[in-house]
Amino acid sequence: MTNVSEIAKNANASALVLAHLSTDLKNRALTMMANALEEHRDAILSANKKDLQFAENKNIAKALIDRLGLSEEKVRAMVKSIRSVVALDDPVGKIKSVTELDKDIVVEQVTCPIGVIGAIFESRPDAVPQISSLCFKSGNAVILKGGREAQHSNKMIAKLLVEAMRKVPGVPKFAVQMIETRAEGIDMLKEEQYIHLIVPRGSSAFVKYIQENTKIPVLGHSEGVCHGYIDKSADLDKAIRVCLDSKLQYPAACNAMETLLVHKDIAKKVLPDLAAKFKKAQVELVGCVETCRVVPDVSPACESDWDLEYNDLKLSIKIVDSFSDAVEFINKHGSGHTDMILAEDRERADRFLDEVSSASVMCNASTRFADGFRYGLGAEIGISTNRTHARGPVGLEGLVIYKYKLHGNGQIVDDYFGDNAREFTHKPLTPPT
Amino acid sequence: MTNVSEIAKNANASALVLAHLSTDLKNRALTMMANALEEHRDAILSANKKDLQFAENKNIAKALIDRLGLSEEKVRAMVKSIRSVVALDDPVGKIKSVTELDKDIVVEQVTCPIGVIGAIFESRPDAVPQISSLCFKSGNAVILKGGREAQHSNKMIAKLLVEAMRKVPGVPKFAVQMIETRAEGIDMLKEEQYIHLIVPRGSSAFVKYIQENTKIPVLGHSEGVCHGYIDKSADLDKAIRVCLDSKLQYPAACNAMETLLVHKDIAKKVLPDLAAKFKKAQVELVGCVETCRVVPDVSPACESDWDLEYNDLKLSIKIVDSFSDAVEFINKHGSGHTDMILAEDRERADRFLDEVSSASVMCNASTRFADGFRYGLGAEIGISTNRTHARGPVGLEGLVIYKYKLHGNGQIVDDYFGDNAREFTHKPLTPPT
Repeated sequence: MTNVSEIAKNANASALVLAHLSTDLKNRALTMMANALEEHRDAILSANKKDLQFAENKNIAKALIDRLGLSEEKVRAMVKSIRSVVALDDPVGKIKSVTELDKDIVVEQVTCPIGVIGAIFESRPDAVPQISSLCFKSGNAVILKGGREAQHSNKMIAKLLVEAMRKVPGVPKFAVQMIETRAEGIDMLKEEQYIHLIVPRGSSAFVKYIQENTKIPVLGHSEGVCHGYIDKSADLDKAIRVCLDSKLQYPAACNAMETLLVHKDIAKKVLPDLAAKFKKAQVELVGCVETCRVVPDVSPACESDWDLEYNDLKLSIKIVDSFSDAVEFINKHGSGHTDMILAEDRERADRFLDEVSSASVMCNASTRFADGFRYGLGAEIGISTNRTHARGPVGLEGLVIYKYKLHGNGQIVDDYFGDNAREFTHKPLTPPT
Repeated sequence: MTNVSEIAKNANASALVLAHLSTDLKNRALTMMANALEEHRDAILSANKKDLQFAENKNIAKALIDRLGLSEEKVRAMVKSIRSVVALDDPVGKIKSVTELDKDIVVEQVTCPIGVIGAIFESRPDAVPQISSLCFKSGNAVILKGGREAQHSNKMIAKLLVEAMRKVPGVPKFAVQMIETRAEGIDMLKEEQYIHLIVPRGSSAFVKYIQENTKIPVLGHSEGVCHGYIDKSADLDKAIRVCLDSKLQYPAACNAMETLLVHKDIAKKVLPDLAAKFKKAQVELVGCVETCRVVPDVSPACESDWDLEYNDLKLSIKIVDSFSDAVEFINKHGSGHTDMILAEDRERADRFLDEVSSASVMCNASTRFADGFRYGLGAEIGISTNRTHARGPVGLEGLVIYKYKLHGNGQIVDDYFGDNAREFTHKPLTPPT
């Protein structure tokens, strides 16, 4: 048995205990975890310094170093994020439905944790407290695999969290574990017997690699090819404002707009002005033949542009003949992440929200709203473009599933067969609130 | 592009249309489908005759032939099952939550179909109308792959269903498609771009093969190693009755009991009588050393017995020292399908339902109740031992996911950043009922 098998097995044993801890006990442990990071801020910062030094010696890219570096303020934000998880509603033990099957026999559908979560992420040491606290609150055991560049920071933070939670009697020993090497990360992907969900965070290529190399369900998104569509019924001032925000507010985000579709009837009215504003903001524009005709300084797009996530100050623009063409284009070229219509015709907007099959569909608001915090989920474990389990921004609810609890009084199934078979009542009962 | 890629692509295009068909339109098409099978009963029966002839010539096992054979009554049952799907609540378009993010900007979480379902099943031609109608009602396109032994029946039924639904204007052309060869079935498992969920029905080995050979999520269960545990607080008359039903009511079912655990304090009181009743019903009994001591004509179990799904008139029995030992044993050896406690001590029963991590956990009722129809789900697409998406008996709700629909009025995310940042209200609104 590899080291990771042992870790996964231990996580699974701890998950069985975590599943039925009380909310109060979980919140006490989370508070201890927050306090521990607060009290040992200096230890965290000095561990982080080692990572930064290592990164500088290795000439690691500036952007990565920015995400890697911690400050007093960032540690305070970590502490605050754990305390905000304390404040979240416990997603475990919610009764989703109660059905009377017959006299004295009732089945309840009750939420419960998934079991063991494998979380794999790059740089950013703040992922450690965030993912740990969300998994813990939802009663899941977690195995963390961070990037090598953040190893000292991650190790210190995880150590503090684990020591703190273990001080609360009843918390199982292996609720949070960390693995370190790339080889261990790969081994983790093989533990489908004990690990029930993989949550990867990182680049498209990174997430895609994980999706292609495990039988464990993966909650994540590899690409965010998000569209805006300016309908002929759009309010053009609103449209321009929202499109600029969708592209510019944070171009590297997965919910930033990559392709803009414009209805042919208003292209001449809106595109020259909008393109000028994008140009002013240093956005490189490529477009279809029609677009280049309407805005001469847009370069022609190649066929591959329509499927690209630039994650950068670049935008592709296409003029479409009709609303239906826009919907069809998005369903074909989008990645099912987030797509938006700008329209004042309410019926058309509603059709867009129905017919575009993406996880988040929006009318007259920036694609950048597609985010767990902004949606009011309280915290986000990730954004999913899966079609099963959890979709779009995923909060605590995505870390639970349900079980059926049946309470009988000696009933047998054979009584419901043959002559004089009993009949089920199947009466929905109101769950206690 | 293989034939199956084309089929999957067509299914996906049709799924985009199916996703927003009205309930009324779907119900009209389902009614046409039911009528078509009713009207063409003879054609179905004569196609079935060809399959039976082929099976006899090939010396196919009697049990398989039993499941393969159709009768007037079985066709009536098919028709009835489609009509019962008409009566089910439409699972699409249910508003799960509505949140005001700020003035004039609201996000709704609304149920929607998954997309394209690949259904793979063995013999039983009645799977064709059942799976087709459930997928259609939930707005999913489906690709059916039946067993070769039922090919004439399946083809005739599918043809009738497809012709009938296409008579209703608005129903897309490729809502239900069928593939036939084993090679096509294998090709289907590779279409993760267009197929979003595989639903396999068949033997453990069959389901396991599928789980191991696709990147598409699989909704199913390979094994049902279900336990009963007779606690020392059990009412022994009830316990005996329920245990007999759990094993005998349909021994080949996945929810039949395979292992019985008995608390040591009542083993001598209950086991001799219970074992005699099992023996009388031709059940082969194997047991732990203690069990063999208490009931001398029980044979010793081997270590592997505790992990076996017999699917037959065989039961393994183990005497345990404590409630906790029983829970631990079940979490270790069970397959997470269905497990049951017999106990009058309510607190202990509740602990069992909390601590055993299976999809269905039961107190004082036969494991055989774990079934979509008996749970009141209306219909069952399958039973899942997955830890994500859908668990236990899965009805129409397991064939939908949700999307976020955001309605704004020109809002941008940048207004919520920096000095004078706007604050989110995150006010839960009541969904319209």
